[in-house]
Amino acid sequence: MRKIRVAIVGYGNIGKGVYEAITASPDMELAGVILRDVKTAQVKGVPVELKVAEKINDLGKVDVALLCIPSRSVEATAAKLLSQGIHTVDSYDIHGDIYDVGQRLSAIGKAHNAVSVMAAGWDPGTDSMVRAILEAAAPKGLTYTNFGPGMSMGHTVVAKSKAGVKNALSVTIPSGTGLHRRMVYIQPEVGANFAEITTAIKSDPYFSNDDTHVVLAEDIDALQDKGHGVNMVRKGVSGTTDNQLFEFNMTINNPALTAQIMVSAARAATRQSGGCYTLLEVPIIDMLPGNREAIIRRLV
Amino acid sequence: MRKIRVAIVGYGNIGKGVYEAITASPDMELAGVILRDVKTAQVKGVPVELKVAEKINDLGKVDVALLCIPSRSVEATAAKLLSQGIHTVDSYDIHGDIYDVGQRLSAIGKAHNAVSVMAAGWDPGTDSMVRAILEAAAPKGLTYTNFGPGMSMGHTVVAKSKAGVKNALSVTIPSGTGLHRRMVYIQPEVGANFAEITTAIKSDPYFSNDDTHVVLAEDIDALQDKGHGVNMVRKGVSGTTDNQLFEFNMTINNPALTAQIMVSAARAATRQSGGCYTLLEVPIIDMLPGNREAIIRRLV
Repeated sequence: MRKIRVAIVGYGNIGKGVYEAITASPDMELAGVILRDVKTAQVKGVPVELKVAEKINDLGKVDVALLCIPSRSVEATAAKLLSQGIHTVDSYDIHGDIYDVGQRLSAIGKAHNAVSVMAAGWDPGTDSMVRAILEAAAPKGLTYTNFGPGMSMGHTVVAKSKAGVKNALSVTIPSGTGLHRRMVYIQPEVGANFAEITTAIKSDPYFSNDDTHVVLAEDIDALQDKGHGVNMVRKGVSGTTDNQLFEFNMTINNPALTAQIMVSAARAATRQSGGCYTLLEVPIIDMLPGNREAIIRRLV
Repeated sequence: MRKIRVAIVGYGNIGKGVYEAITASPDMELAGVILRDVKTAQVKGVPVELKVAEKINDLGKVDVALLCIPSRSVEATAAKLLSQGIHTVDSYDIHGDIYDVGQRLSAIGKAHNAVSVMAAGWDPGTDSMVRAILEAAAPKGLTYTNFGPGMSMGHTVVAKSKAGVKNALSVTIPSGTGLHRRMVYIQPEVGANFAEITTAIKSDPYFSNDDTHVVLAEDIDALQDKGHGVNMVRKGVSGTTDNQLFEFNMTINNPALTAQIMVSAARAATRQSGGCYTLLEVPIIDMLPGNREAIIRRLV
């Protein structure tokens, strides 16, 4: 059987994880990597055996492009690739915009018989699938998704942006019921006022609603850890029976998991008709490699 | 919008749970109950406001029939209903036969543009969905599904069948790594030899491979509890990153959960093209009521 030919667009932590996941996938092969500037390939650590290009047409036939780029760049990049009839997968993570972006990409996908699988990371992504299954199992009730312990990219960027901050790390700690503590580690610039940095961070809208602790750190690099976690709980009602209890936990390497889910979603992209899909709209079996009979016999 | 009209076939614990779940579903209504003998409706506890019939044609238009009957009766009943163009949902639980029965029902469904959603309970069912998601997230590794504490119907029937047993209850206790302890509570007949009963149970193939404890009980009815539980764990590899840890737990009322999942699957049945589907083959969103935009905005 012909292997699914995949291009990696962007080569940061997720791009590297996608490379590793494709290498481990029996039914896929790499067409190459797309970078805005091919001269950056070496410093980004693109393996030398991979073809690198600035335009996807230079990689030959590509079935699916995996967009390992910031969420804000996803729509424009996906729109262009879908118009060329190339499927796309992303881990777009701006929850409130997924539906609207998806509607626009869906129109392009339908017009060019190409598929976008959107928001295919772990949250949004597989966590969304679990949340939906729990509502199918107990329609009334409350679900809390608790994140961490793990680094928050968004909060780290905000902390780094404050005056006097040389380097920073914001770690998310779950407090239960969907609330989170922010532990913000700050390496100040020489001569900076730590009390002022603390006030600036605690009053920022990113932090002001959470229990935020700002901690002095000598070396931020020494604290870096790509691990993350989720604890999701639902207490709900099946029919008229209360107190149905569900819990989902993970402790994972964040970029490795995101990349693997994107690769599984790439497989699903080749199995849908033109349009844009979240993971809720794709049959789960389409994400798995191999024979459908064998999957059903093993997992159902 | 027109409500989905549902018939309940059979009225034991699951049928009663389906009645409750339909009552709580905003987009469904009950056409009635099918029994082999309508005269048993009262003793089975069918609510007086429900229409009861022996033939489905006597219930008027039916979109989906929920088969609340033993697994061994599912195929023949589903085949007949699908031939009449009526969708069916079951919680068939003989794991090894699901694929083959499904292939036969799929042919009938396709011929009559009717949909069967098979094995739509919690295991097989929603547990199967979670197992598949965990493989999409970490393709290499081991998943263990640990059941209990809760009553095992199959083991209870075997225990009851032994000579000298007046009543029995077999409870499944999880021992981890997919192994289970069997706690078998026995109410002997007057004059029966408890040691002989114990030997008969422990040597039965249903029990001989498990850590089985046979316990004397004065009153089995006093021990009955419809609760059950699952603890599923996976340790696996995303891409080339080992030690990705996942866990799914539930503590639930067994018939209420099975019935609710069947009702959610009935909704999905109305949204597929003719054929037979396990829950792995249906987009999760099709199981949920309401507007797709609202579901995506809330859960993704």
